[in-house]
Amino acid sequence: MDKLAVLGAGSWGTALAIVLADNGYNINLWARRQEQIDEINQRHTNARYLPDIALPENIKGTADIGEAVRDVDTILVVTPTKAIRDVLSQVKPFLKKPVLFIHGTKGIEPRTSKRVSEIIEEEIPENLRKAVAVLSGPSHAEEVCHKQPTTVTVASYDKDAARKVQDMFINQNFRVYTNHDVIGVEIGGALKNIIALGAGISDGLNYGDNAKAALITRGLAEITRLGTKMGAHPLTFTGLAGMGDLIVTCTSVHSRNWRAGNLLGKGYDLNQILDEMGMVVEGVRTTEAAYYLSEKEEVDMPITKAIYELLFNDKPAKKAVDELMGRVKTHEIGELSDILMQRMEKEDSPF
Amino acid sequence: MDKLAVLGAGSWGTALAIVLADNGYNINLWARRQEQIDEINQRHTNARYLPDIALPENIKGTADIGEAVRDVDTILVVTPTKAIRDVLSQVKPFLKKPVLFIHGTKGIEPRTSKRVSEIIEEEIPENLRKAVAVLSGPSHAEEVCHKQPTTVTVASYDKDAARKVQDMFINQNFRVYTNHDVIGVEIGGALKNIIALGAGISDGLNYGDNAKAALITRGLAEITRLGTKMGAHPLTFTGLAGMGDLIVTCTSVHSRNWRAGNLLGKGYDLNQILDEMGMVVEGVRTTEAAYYLSEKEEVDMPITKAIYELLFNDKPAKKAVDELMGRVKTHEIGELSDILMQRMEKEDSPF
Repeated sequence: MDKLAVLGAGSWGTALAIVLADNGYNINLWARRQEQIDEINQRHTNARYLPDIALPENIKGTADIGEAVRDVDTILVVTPTKAIRDVLSQVKPFLKKPVLFIHGTKGIEPRTSKRVSEIIEEEIPENLRKAVAVLSGPSHAEEVCHKQPTTVTVASYDKDAARKVQDMFINQNFRVYTNHDVIGVEIGGALKNIIALGAGISDGLNYGDNAKAALITRGLAEITRLGTKMGAHPLTFTGLAGMGDLIVTCTSVHSRNWRAGNLLGKGYDLNQILDEMGMVVEGVRTTEAAYYLSEKEEVDMPITKAIYELLFNDKPAKKAVDELMGRVKTHEIGELSDILMQRMEKEDSPF
Repeated sequence: MDKLAVLGAGSWGTALAIVLADNGYNINLWARRQEQIDEINQRHTNARYLPDIALPENIKGTADIGEAVRDVDTILVVTPTKAIRDVLSQVKPFLKKPVLFIHGTKGIEPRTSKRVSEIIEEEIPENLRKAVAVLSGPSHAEEVCHKQPTTVTVASYDKDAARKVQDMFINQNFRVYTNHDVIGVEIGGALKNIIALGAGISDGLNYGDNAKAALITRGLAEITRLGTKMGAHPLTFTGLAGMGDLIVTCTSVHSRNWRAGNLLGKGYDLNQILDEMGMVVEGVRTTEAAYYLSEKEEVDMPITKAIYELLFNDKPAKKAVDELMGRVKTHEIGELSDILMQRMEKEDSPF
């Protein structure tokens, strides 16, 4: 069976390594900290990120990135967004032949507003990559490890690559659908974390399920507006990597972004929250990146803007949410319909 | 200020009566049981449906339907679907002039597969109705009564009527958007109860948040397929009356349909559940109606079909859900895209 490298041993990287190992692949799981690698190899656990989960024997940990990627055909990148350029620049010198890159990272690079697949394309020369695919969807790592039913989407411009990744991951509990709207899948996965912060804030203010459902619905509408302007297909946002992932992230107490938002809504300070959580809260940086994207693309994103003001300009949470709810009465989806119509006129068959 | 009749004093009818009373209207709230009416008029409560809520003084209860509708310009119907024909036939003899009909009932008539606005149009002659509007969206009655922020959609073919209803209901906590896709708003509101049953079943089986998010996402896709075939606009299903209402109904323990599904997932018997809950669980009858609609319209609705088999043909819950999850691997949204494309080609501007 093929050997695969998984770069990043947080909860999601480890969970995906387990799926692949269960499907018979031998996995080199790379992480920076030697102590974590020793735990993975000696005790077959990764307790900080996935308490109570036993790792299969065919997952081998290594802190040596050259060893991790040696002779592999496929590299799965699952580090936080801010670490990706650095990790890829370390990988590059060891590549001797074109490799299939898959990533499972949900974020946008703050300064450049680049998507993760764009970063991969910038850092890895074309002659060293076969294709780039993104895997995304409603998928708490803990549930994947407990073999609870999970469905995800794999997107690649290269249809054969998307089908190859589907075959690698699919099993009875982990269902994989293909798509070739890379932009839509990446924008949906990244921006849902902003709305999850918002859902947490609304819950922290005790605003109830009606308010949260409205926020999620209108949040997806503004993600769709931005994504479509950037070239995504609007229907991607109604699928697993859009609505599906958004729902799970906004309604589950497992979600880090929801938890951070919830504490913000209760009045805690952002820096204090980030310090205490001790894990990366992607939504905070993504809010900044999406705010600049919305300005650049001239797309109206009232929820993103409100959360940006709250995170970076000290706007009180209650004021931000009340302003959102009190917007002038309007016709529900006129604008989105216009965008969709324009898009449909331009294209023949997006799928 | 105008006088309005609200027919049906369950939790949702009473909550809408409170919103209108708060906005200054005088309300005749009709219910069948004299005992409930006495409680409404003497103690200003409706404790069986809305414990701990005080009704405003300008809500007047009556068990006399002729008295309720006398001299009103607007009638809001919020009875269970199965009672609507009977209630309207009682109302008809008392109408002396055309009236604006609004309804807030989420269901489809089992035998006929008619939507609620179609039932109103059949039972009330054209010369006695000004227009018909439907009010729907993510809105637990309890939260509306506690003045928690809530957003809903009002749809009518008559744009002036939609705006008039918007003006009647809108206030700082209750935000109202207009739409004129009556079919989409009614189908979204009715069929979400089927998916809520499914979400409850999945939770009852302890399948986790990933599985539930997948079920909700693919549930909305099949509702959209059916609704679009029946003439609805697909984007309505991405709005408050589609996705918004679906989320709140599937993820909240307040929801009756979710609760019934949850007990089904845990292995309880359907009739026992319905007896013990003592309130109407619209999703059960709606599943039957939607199943026949999907056959008639030749639309693939695997989730509705699985829940139909479980409710009416004794299929075990686990088997039904496992079959849904294990469907062949496929391209995510090809079919929906096709429907949307066909639809877009036919129309100029649906909104």
